[in-house]
Amino acid sequence: MSRHPLHDIMQPKSVAIAGASADGRGAGFVSPLIELGFKGKIYPVNPKYAGQDIMGFKTYATVRDIPDPVDFVISSIPATQVLPLLDDCAAKGVKLIHFFTARFSETGRPEAIALEKEVLRRAKAANIRLIGPNCMGVYYPAMGISFNEGMPRQSGVVGCASQSGSAVGEIVEAGRVRGCFFTKAISYGNAIDLNESDYLQYFAEDEDTKIIVMYIEGVRDGKRFFRTLRETTLRKPVVIIKGGRGKAGTRATASHTASLAGAMEVWHTAVRQAGAVEVGTIDELMDVAAALQFLPPTFGVRVGVAGGSGGSSVMGADQCEEAGLDVIPMPQEIREELKKRGSPIWDWISNPADFSIQMGDFNSGGEVIQLMAEDPHFDMLIMYLSPPHNWGPRRGQGPPPSLEEHMKRSGIGLTKKPILAVMQERWRGPADDIADMMKKSADFRAKLMEVGVPSYPNIQAAARAANRFVWYYKNREQALVAECQ
Amino acid sequence: MSRHPLHDIMQPKSVAIAGASADGRGAGFVSPLIELGFKGKIYPVNPKYAGQDIMGFKTYATVRDIPDPVDFVISSIPATQVLPLLDDCAAKGVKLIHFFTARFSETGRPEAIALEKEVLRRAKAANIRLIGPNCMGVYYPAMGISFNEGMPRQSGVVGCASQSGSAVGEIVEAGRVRGCFFTKAISYGNAIDLNESDYLQYFAEDEDTKIIVMYIEGVRDGKRFFRTLRETTLRKPVVIIKGGRGKAGTRATASHTASLAGAMEVWHTAVRQAGAVEVGTIDELMDVAAALQFLPPTFGVRVGVAGGSGGSSVMGADQCEEAGLDVIPMPQEIREELKKRGSPIWDWISNPADFSIQMGDFNSGGEVIQLMAEDPHFDMLIMYLSPPHNWGPRRGQGPPPSLEEHMKRSGIGLTKKPILAVMQERWRGPADDIADMMKKSADFRAKLMEVGVPSYPNIQAAARAANRFVWYYKNREQALVAECQ
Repeated sequence: MSRHPLHDIMQPKSVAIAGASADGRGAGFVSPLIELGFKGKIYPVNPKYAGQDIMGFKTYATVRDIPDPVDFVISSIPATQVLPLLDDCAAKGVKLIHFFTARFSETGRPEAIALEKEVLRRAKAANIRLIGPNCMGVYYPAMGISFNEGMPRQSGVVGCASQSGSAVGEIVEAGRVRGCFFTKAISYGNAIDLNESDYLQYFAEDEDTKIIVMYIEGVRDGKRFFRTLRETTLRKPVVIIKGGRGKAGTRATASHTASLAGAMEVWHTAVRQAGAVEVGTIDELMDVAAALQFLPPTFGVRVGVAGGSGGSSVMGADQCEEAGLDVIPMPQEIREELKKRGSPIWDWISNPADFSIQMGDFNSGGEVIQLMAEDPHFDMLIMYLSPPHNWGPRRGQGPPPSLEEHMKRSGIGLTKKPILAVMQERWRGPADDIADMMKKSADFRAKLMEVGVPSYPNIQAAARAANRFVWYYKNREQALVAECQ
Repeated sequence: MSRHPLHDIMQPKSVAIAGASADGRGAGFVSPLIELGFKGKIYPVNPKYAGQDIMGFKTYATVRDIPDPVDFVISSIPATQVLPLLDDCAAKGVKLIHFFTARFSETGRPEAIALEKEVLRRAKAANIRLIGPNCMGVYYPAMGISFNEGMPRQSGVVGCASQSGSAVGEIVEAGRVRGCFFTKAISYGNAIDLNESDYLQYFAEDEDTKIIVMYIEGVRDGKRFFRTLRETTLRKPVVIIKGGRGKAGTRATASHTASLAGAMEVWHTAVRQAGAVEVGTIDELMDVAAALQFLPPTFGVRVGVAGGSGGSSVMGADQCEEAGLDVIPMPQEIREELKKRGSPIWDWISNPADFSIQMGDFNSGGEVIQLMAEDPHFDMLIMYLSPPHNWGPRRGQGPPPSLEEHMKRSGIGLTKKPILAVMQERWRGPADDIADMMKKSADFRAKLMEVGVPSYPNIQAAARAANRFVWYYKNREQALVAECQ
């Protein structure tokens, strides 16, 4: 397979925005470039504002009028005007067009379908590659490209290809709160030229991308897609949401991105056989991505659960098992060691380790966690952690501990064993206090990430992510073994 | 069935706290009473502080020393000291004791099991009823009784009985954010005297309680419980979480509240046959409770989904169907009406109604919702609503609308049809802005509740709650019909 052309054409030195205007959506594609610090040239294009400034850039009537080379064009003009734009781009030697422009085949109307075909025909003739139409396009923080204001400037290791634009926005946002940032995130809509397989291959080849996440409504070329997927998952994890799983969703995908959803059982089986992880929601998607990003490869699901109180331990164990994890009994070795150390709960401590029965003696909690972290029977630990606003000060217990002290007492950082933190944050009280709590909580989560611990809002999310992340590595190992035989 | 004695003995005119101390847990049971404004007398009891003040109340060495009658005793003394306390309570004519005191049968130790039996024997002999042991006891806001600081003063229509104390805290907190408040919430731990059936009967008979939620690890008397449950669900909904569903959870319940979990399939079937709703997490529990509290009885699952953009509509439809709802096609009558009104999207608008294709023309969105609300094909609507911090101001669109204006534009309040709102709130930006956003968002949610619209953080939660809430009413209707034949 030769290296995908996107690697070269996704490095534009100049961007023209067709349909830019002094306000509204068109300028919307100018302002994100400014906000993210795009280093190349920016050319607003709109006959109505020709010669005027839009956000400090001289506006041209057509792409053809721009005096310098143009690599990349973002089109937000109406569908009725795209054919002349294509001809201008062809004349100018443009390599890549992103069509935000919509109302093509997704409308189901014959004239719109015909227009879409003509767009593709002219693009192919001019050797122009197309993203879209009917999509938000490219977010590429290292290059300073974005389609929305307020997207993170920080780059990361996750590559995202999504048929839906709003899904990309949600995926990036869900990533941000989990400490997952992106190499590039591309919304590709109707995918008349570049399709899911192109983006997948591109991210598979991209060295900066370590994890790939996708939102797919329908595939254009199933054979190519699953072949590319199988090859990719042997090297890096791919996590997929299929949009349009039921009959209503299928109807909706048709009017959304003109995709035909296939029979779901066939799809699920094919994705699994290709070694990709499938999830049902954006939160689940980024929960798995966070586990893949922060935790070392793990090949078993024997989990130790610690730090909860009575009811949360019981419910936590249920939810771990329902997610496919194995909540093994507390190893006898740990009980013996606790007995040796004179712990009064040695014969009583179980897995999940209920910390409320220790009556607030937090240090012995840390001791139990340390023993669990060192014990080879556990493949991973899931730990309930109090958010900072629950750390005190309690009556007669002195000031609340620092972040570092709290982590030490919790046993975090003592071990190389994969740890997933569960931190349930409930905000109440005066607005100022809440703002302060949220800040402290975010700092705590950041500290946890620094030592390789992703955090989850509840144990169900942590357990499901853990099971899926282990599944990826186990499946890949089997596939690699099979390949070498 | 005679009226349960709890109705009378849960109205104490005086409370003694055995084990109260100047700080720590004992005083912890004094301070919540003060905070919630308990109207009766408060007597701290502790020989160490006899004659001294604890939080402004004179402390007695024993319950027997208190000069006036004592109705209710909260015990936070060690297990080794409970027998003399029981004798004092018997001499004093105490009617009800809550044993926060733990380390009884849940430890699995023979001497602790024997002690628990003796506690029950002496209580029965003295006609004293027991809550617990090993539990948090009573939260009863109208009476000013609580076991924790910071519990809501506001009473509501939900009654809660929970074997776990931490679960009650979480349930009340999960209720608060959903606008669900409580008549009483009782944590009952090992349930050696009053058990799940007593609390269920009590809430069934309690006129202020309209909805019952329970967290149960194991039942003491299955026959009585399921008979009481069947009778109760004919009159008011009961929503149950079973703690200890798997093998690890079962181990954990044994050391938590000394319960024996039964075979799960038998349990699920029995709960369903008794007409109660079963859920797996506390969030799900209160999601269903909110639907039951805010929405009128509903007997079908044909849902209209509106207000999303492309990807969220597709995923929303999937999640509705996976939750058991029927996302029916957009009724032809609505399309015809839109055509008559000259809408350009009349032949394109679908269910889910993707509002992004209307290119921001919000009023026509309101028009579609109004038509959906009036259409008899839909049993209910699920609506995506933007949280207030996404209302603008956008460039060139003027100031953001007021809460009232936004609700009007969203079509909320136009209809008596059950509506569940989905409002995804993601907090980012400077702390001050976040605090302001959260306040506005809470105000918006409160306004929605005023017009009978519960809100959910994602469509999965809304759809699952909707399906369960309809199931309750349909099942009850069938049971009532069967009874009348």
